[in-house]
Amino acid sequence: VENLWLVNGRPGQVDPADRGIAYGDGLFETMLARDGRIRWLDYHLARLLDGCSRLGIDGVDEQSLRAEITAHLPSRPAVVKLIVTRGVGIRGYRPPHGCEPTRILAISSWSGYPADHYTSGIRVRTCELRLGENPRLAGMKHLNRLEQVLASKEIEASGADEGLLLDTSGRVVGGGSTNVFVVRRGRLLTPSIERSGIRGVMRRIVLEAAVAAGIDSTETELERNALDDADELFVTNALSFIRPVRELDGRAYAIGPVTRQLMTSVDERHG
Amino acid sequence: VENLWLVNGRPGQVDPADRGIAYGDGLFETMLARDGRIRWLDYHLARLLDGCSRLGIDGVDEQSLRAEITAHLPSRPAVVKLIVTRGVGIRGYRPPHGCEPTRILAISSWSGYPADHYTSGIRVRTCELRLGENPRLAGMKHLNRLEQVLASKEIEASGADEGLLLDTSGRVVGGGSTNVFVVRRGRLLTPSIERSGIRGVMRRIVLEAAVAAGIDSTETELERNALDDADELFVTNALSFIRPVRELDGRAYAIGPVTRQLMTSVDERHG
Repeated sequence: VENLWLVNGRPGQVDPADRGIAYGDGLFETMLARDGRIRWLDYHLARLLDGCSRLGIDGVDEQSLRAEITAHLPSRPAVVKLIVTRGVGIRGYRPPHGCEPTRILAISSWSGYPADHYTSGIRVRTCELRLGENPRLAGMKHLNRLEQVLASKEIEASGADEGLLLDTSGRVVGGGSTNVFVVRRGRLLTPSIERSGIRGVMRRIVLEAAVAAGIDSTETELERNALDDADELFVTNALSFIRPVRELDGRAYAIGPVTRQLMTSVDERHG
Repeated sequence: VENLWLVNGRPGQVDPADRGIAYGDGLFETMLARDGRIRWLDYHLARLLDGCSRLGIDGVDEQSLRAEITAHLPSRPAVVKLIVTRGVGIRGYRPPHGCEPTRILAISSWSGYPADHYTSGIRVRTCELRLGENPRLAGMKHLNRLEQVLASKEIEASGADEGLLLDTSGRVVGGGSTNVFVVRRGRLLTPSIERSGIRGVMRRIVLEAAVAAGIDSTETELERNALDDADELFVTNALSFIRPVRELDGRAYAIGPVTRQLMTSVDERHG
């Protein structure tokens, strides 16, 4: 699959006055396409449109987005990234009236994560960088991602497969590009994403799969030390699904029965 | 003056894979040009390059930037906005090796703020929105500005000329697009910008002008209620210089002698 980039439905570039560049004034989704369809497209679009509503980005039409995305899907596995910005504005934080949103669609081939991430688990390090807290931005997959960029450099330098990010108050938020789940005495726990972090599509799928499987699950505040007495630990996103954690900061974790059950269940769930 | 937009030195558009769009992975400066030169260009470039260093954006050449900016200055007053992003990357937070930074230069005419902002002062309201805290990002004029976008909508709805922004802990950070100064018993105070906010060029000029004028000044933590017993209050940025505050949340302030002295001093200082 060649890389395909479409700006407002056509090959092209972006106006330098776009507020996506100026202020990160927009949102994105990163989606997995397999067999010519996007997995969990409804959930991706629901989150995107919720973000538009929270940011006051008007004029995004769900049916057009859906048509544009599905018109260009290859049959081989691909990553489909969709960016929606508020549109063009000359200068100043205040959005001009009558902004027309900009759509950027990028489709690239996808070779997946290494198989041993799933069979043996991944290594995770807690990052020094802390995430700022802002309930007005929490949950959205918006374009203000400098914290994640800085964290990614820290993770690369550590040699780990993924980083664990805490907020300013020391609570667990998630991984560098994943959500985090803890299994403790058969119960599933995940950070509540009220002040930092992204409410991942795969996080939603896993919580639903837990309900279907009769596994007790809770969205809650988690201190870093709550992970030390976890029985199982895993991270999620829409590309990687569920990856078990085999080591966090030198402490070993087994790939346990709850993780395995959810891995099977998520893989079987249709999107 | 017509609007002029240059991308990497030429009229054109931006690659949709630019990390400035994807993650707000870059910085900007908004500068005032008068009589064919930029005021305080050295300070603007110093802040920009410090930000590049903090974010690990390599390959920005100060001399080329300086030449490019000054090559296109009109003789009439203009706003010169310079954006520098990390450059193009296909996908993923981690910066690819060998990124070439993208430069966007925008020049537009400038008619100034209303005269009564200077003669009578402006009206300010404290925003509901709180700014997240992150020492790793504080001070820089980076492209992650969704908080300021949301605040600008709140300010517009309030009908005030500017907003006052507090951080998550309740400390004063600054205005929506300004820094804030307090005069109390002849002393000048301004928030220290260690956890949120932008370290403004005009803020730096004012602090230097205070030293030159023998006015005692301190960068410090300021609670919101510290503004209630202020004798004078003003806001600053590189376009508006010093604007006195005549009202904050219904409380009236006089345009006092320290503010007047600094207004004169800053206006006379060469950039």
